[in-house]
Amino acid sequence: MYRTHTCGELRISHVGQKVTLSGWVQTIRNLGGMTFIALRDRYGITQLVFDENTPKNILPMLEGLGREYVVKIAGTVIERSSKNPKMSTGDIEISVSELDVLNKSEIPPFTIEDDTDGGDELRMKYRYLDLRRNPVRKNLELRHIMGQEIRKFLDGEKFIEIETPYLVNSTPEGARDFLVPSRMNPGEFYALPQSPQTLKQLLMVSGFDRYFQIVKCFRDEDLRADRQPEFTQIDCEMSFVDQDDILSIFERLAKHLFYNIKGITYNEAFPRITYEDAMKYYGSDKPDLRFGMRFYELTEKVKGKGFVVFDSVDYIGGFCAKGCSEYSRKQLDELTLFVQRPQVGAKGMVYVKYNTDGTFKSSVDKFYSPEDLKTWAEYMGAQPGDLLLILAGKESSTLSALNILRLEMGDQLGLRDKDKFAPCWVVDFPLLEWDEDEKRFFAKHHPFTSPKTEDIQYFESDPGRMHANAYDFVVNGVEIGGGSIRIFNSELQQKMFSALGISKEEAEVKFGFLLNAFRFGAPPHGGIAFGFDRFCSVLGGSESIRDFIAFPKNNSGRDVMLDTPSKIDKKQLDELYLNVLPIQKK
Amino acid sequence: MYRTHTCGELRISHVGQKVTLSGWVQTIRNLGGMTFIALRDRYGITQLVFDENTPKNILPMLEGLGREYVVKIAGTVIERSSKNPKMSTGDIEISVSELDVLNKSEIPPFTIEDDTDGGDELRMKYRYLDLRRNPVRKNLELRHIMGQEIRKFLDGEKFIEIETPYLVNSTPEGARDFLVPSRMNPGEFYALPQSPQTLKQLLMVSGFDRYFQIVKCFRDEDLRADRQPEFTQIDCEMSFVDQDDILSIFERLAKHLFYNIKGITYNEAFPRITYEDAMKYYGSDKPDLRFGMRFYELTEKVKGKGFVVFDSVDYIGGFCAKGCSEYSRKQLDELTLFVQRPQVGAKGMVYVKYNTDGTFKSSVDKFYSPEDLKTWAEYMGAQPGDLLLILAGKESSTLSALNILRLEMGDQLGLRDKDKFAPCWVVDFPLLEWDEDEKRFFAKHHPFTSPKTEDIQYFESDPGRMHANAYDFVVNGVEIGGGSIRIFNSELQQKMFSALGISKEEAEVKFGFLLNAFRFGAPPHGGIAFGFDRFCSVLGGSESIRDFIAFPKNNSGRDVMLDTPSKIDKKQLDELYLNVLPIQKK
Repeated sequence: MYRTHTCGELRISHVGQKVTLSGWVQTIRNLGGMTFIALRDRYGITQLVFDENTPKNILPMLEGLGREYVVKIAGTVIERSSKNPKMSTGDIEISVSELDVLNKSEIPPFTIEDDTDGGDELRMKYRYLDLRRNPVRKNLELRHIMGQEIRKFLDGEKFIEIETPYLVNSTPEGARDFLVPSRMNPGEFYALPQSPQTLKQLLMVSGFDRYFQIVKCFRDEDLRADRQPEFTQIDCEMSFVDQDDILSIFERLAKHLFYNIKGITYNEAFPRITYEDAMKYYGSDKPDLRFGMRFYELTEKVKGKGFVVFDSVDYIGGFCAKGCSEYSRKQLDELTLFVQRPQVGAKGMVYVKYNTDGTFKSSVDKFYSPEDLKTWAEYMGAQPGDLLLILAGKESSTLSALNILRLEMGDQLGLRDKDKFAPCWVVDFPLLEWDEDEKRFFAKHHPFTSPKTEDIQYFESDPGRMHANAYDFVVNGVEIGGGSIRIFNSELQQKMFSALGISKEEAEVKFGFLLNAFRFGAPPHGGIAFGFDRFCSVLGGSESIRDFIAFPKNNSGRDVMLDTPSKIDKKQLDELYLNVLPIQKK
Repeated sequence: MYRTHTCGELRISHVGQKVTLSGWVQTIRNLGGMTFIALRDRYGITQLVFDENTPKNILPMLEGLGREYVVKIAGTVIERSSKNPKMSTGDIEISVSELDVLNKSEIPPFTIEDDTDGGDELRMKYRYLDLRRNPVRKNLELRHIMGQEIRKFLDGEKFIEIETPYLVNSTPEGARDFLVPSRMNPGEFYALPQSPQTLKQLLMVSGFDRYFQIVKCFRDEDLRADRQPEFTQIDCEMSFVDQDDILSIFERLAKHLFYNIKGITYNEAFPRITYEDAMKYYGSDKPDLRFGMRFYELTEKVKGKGFVVFDSVDYIGGFCAKGCSEYSRKQLDELTLFVQRPQVGAKGMVYVKYNTDGTFKSSVDKFYSPEDLKTWAEYMGAQPGDLLLILAGKESSTLSALNILRLEMGDQLGLRDKDKFAPCWVVDFPLLEWDEDEKRFFAKHHPFTSPKTEDIQYFESDPGRMHANAYDFVVNGVEIGGGSIRIFNSELQQKMFSALGISKEEAEVKFGFLLNAFRFGAPPHGGIAFGFDRFCSVLGGSESIRDFIAFPKNNSGRDVMLDTPSKIDKKQLDELYLNVLPIQKK
């Protein structure tokens, strides 16, 4: 038997008991007559003591021990003379009577401690060692608990978890598919699913009413920071529901998680904000509502006073940064440089200080009187001591720059506390989005999203005007999930495909099975999918989903630990009737 | 709102209530003055009644309705005059006051009933309609409950569910991998995992102690009946355990499932049978223990009496079929033909009838006296009224033929009741298996399985003699799962690779990450994996795993509903630097 207890379990009440423990050597402290070893496992650390009471055969073995050795010990629990209140086992230690070295360890390439000396790349290569560290292990424990709680909640709501296949058909909309050549059907390919979207809709046609799945999805995209080629989705679909039914049930799921994971209770409903308002007031369809600073449009209020910059643009707007009237010249210059960076793209920034004495100081003093500035300040909800920050330019790019500036100010003012959570729903998304490059409409959500009933009349005359029964769930400025009520009738689905420039033939080839299914009594249905990695990272207070994935890939889609992808035997390619073409260096 | 209740919910206590229901039209019975519609959803069927009380505008709408139409109705719950005790809602019906047709349906290609008229292929093509049928839906509901119960149990035992990646490296042992070309790393490939074996071992190196995952696995094999290219595994691994710890915890999991799914309590421990005994007594490493009929070897007892067949072979054995002494000539001839089929491969069959009057009748009367036959009968545990069936030949093929004959007799005697369950553990498997074609050893379980400590001495001298710390979980003759204690030290793992003819270099390339990991303090560990599809099908009383998979593939690895795999655009291939070679027809 390897252990009677774990290394996180023993307390003062165990004093006097004979116990057996197994674990890793965290540290060895040799104080001459006494040696202390901190023995670690998943559950905690227990201190082992070796002194004059230790059997004589054991002491020489200590010489050979090193960090990360795996040992099994037997001994007696004794009370510590100097207790460590920071450790759950800090009241006791083990007087060791038997020691077995179960396995040796080379010196790890980085220290196995909360703050390690290992760089990102090294830790990824030795991910199995990085996973020994408390903060990383705790992330995966959080993920496990999230998974359990989600399943418990949805099972309680009569959702059925149904596994959909991973070897599916390639679909044209959306991102690129990962392909899987079929050996039994040479020259033919499966695709890995970007999401089980169409399959879950088929399950609704089958009458499964309430479906969910925590499922891997795959997208072959050029990876931006914090994207993974494979990621996990909490995928849900319901029949005989409208948008309110879905928001209500998944708001309860979110509250269940906030309560069970973070101990936070929300008594109020989550705010619902339309896409239009989100863009207008926050310049983003995923507003961070942990703090205010909503935008005020000034376009009509500030023109015609001779300030050419304002007079020549189609949008002027800004927000009020509370208590920032004392910002120095240097701070304001830095903010100006910040918004002028190519990633933000503003031409410049106008500020108005509403000083605590009631006076105004602004970068546009020359053009606007204190009375003008006071009007702005009052309109924008400012009080003495506040600072107005104003940008001008093309509407969409200025809103987007204001969004980045707002988040920066939120950071500077410490308003983006990772232990505070501000969930909201963004609703009433546009159905279609015009792509200027391809000169055609794309589905804002996806091609199966239902337009709002009152907008269906514009399908031919003014498709860009239509709104969708689509919604996103946003927490702290991060899009955690989204969904929609679906089209459930073949004719409307055909209309949608035409609006997207997908021909009847193409639709038949790619989605024939779904259109067919709709001919046999499809119920009204809709659903939602949450990014599980993202949900975990937000609740875990981290900006990176990688921290919540056991074996993530890097930005080139490589697993540096497994060293994959990799070359394969010609024999394997031959069996697939495939040939790798000469690779041109990019 | 689409419904206030489901179609399985209303009882006599609801009489008088106004309700709204939505669902599918199961049947329409027009009896002249009255029309009855059976309205179906996932939860049941409710009878709707249309008669002289129905608003006049509704009656004409009934003409247009057909089977599988989706409708929403409002009405009042009334007590039925003729109740149907077979239906949970059989006490009531709905007097309908509002009717909305939510969607039409074409006539389905087969009837949506428990016993359908649809053939296998048609039902696979329209799987979304097949899933509407009760028996199929119940299978997926069983699967959902199994999943929930497994997670609940393992979570309670402090197992952590950790998702391992699907885009991994190709490994040489085992079946063929499905490959996934990498666009970002042209000319390189990922593989889909045949199982998370090495990754879960890395998690043990990481200290995760108790891991599980319900996870898809992929094998590109030529599909035999009831194999799927993608299947689901309940994958588990534990550290600081020996074989008994693992068997004990997963026996409790199995008992938890038998109890919670089937209501069956097992007070005794499951039988443990060695591989050697299983082969000797049942001719199979997955014995069906729902019934006895163990084999008795007769080789030494029956030779030298002039019966050439027996005298010339190295193995003679048989079993006693209780109460079958009255088998007719015809039945015995049929059994002989049965064992002579190429799939069974016996030369012939010897029978001995131990008649109820104590006399004997046998196909080898000429060579053996009644006293001889009586000795056999007593040795084989027969009593008057029983029948002995005996085969002879090469040991391994005869045992295998006896196994098939035994199962056939079990079927004939009704001893293989699908509602009865006989679980057992098969233990002490051989470590290696000699492959006569390739003239080398293969791992019986897999290359990471630990030999029994006392057998390690034979690694060089007599590798075939070694036993493994490996075990299978078998129910009703079906292998549900298997596992082993793993090698956790690099040197022993290297020895194993040499025994398998895997060179140091090859091992380094393919398993370098694992061997590396073992150098940094790997704990003793072991695990098990259950076939989830199989476990569901056995508990569901079915022989086919396909019945328990929402969207299965056929024997050519095709999903006939999605019509995949399929040809893809040249553009997609170009991006992957791939070319499909001309396909030779096989």
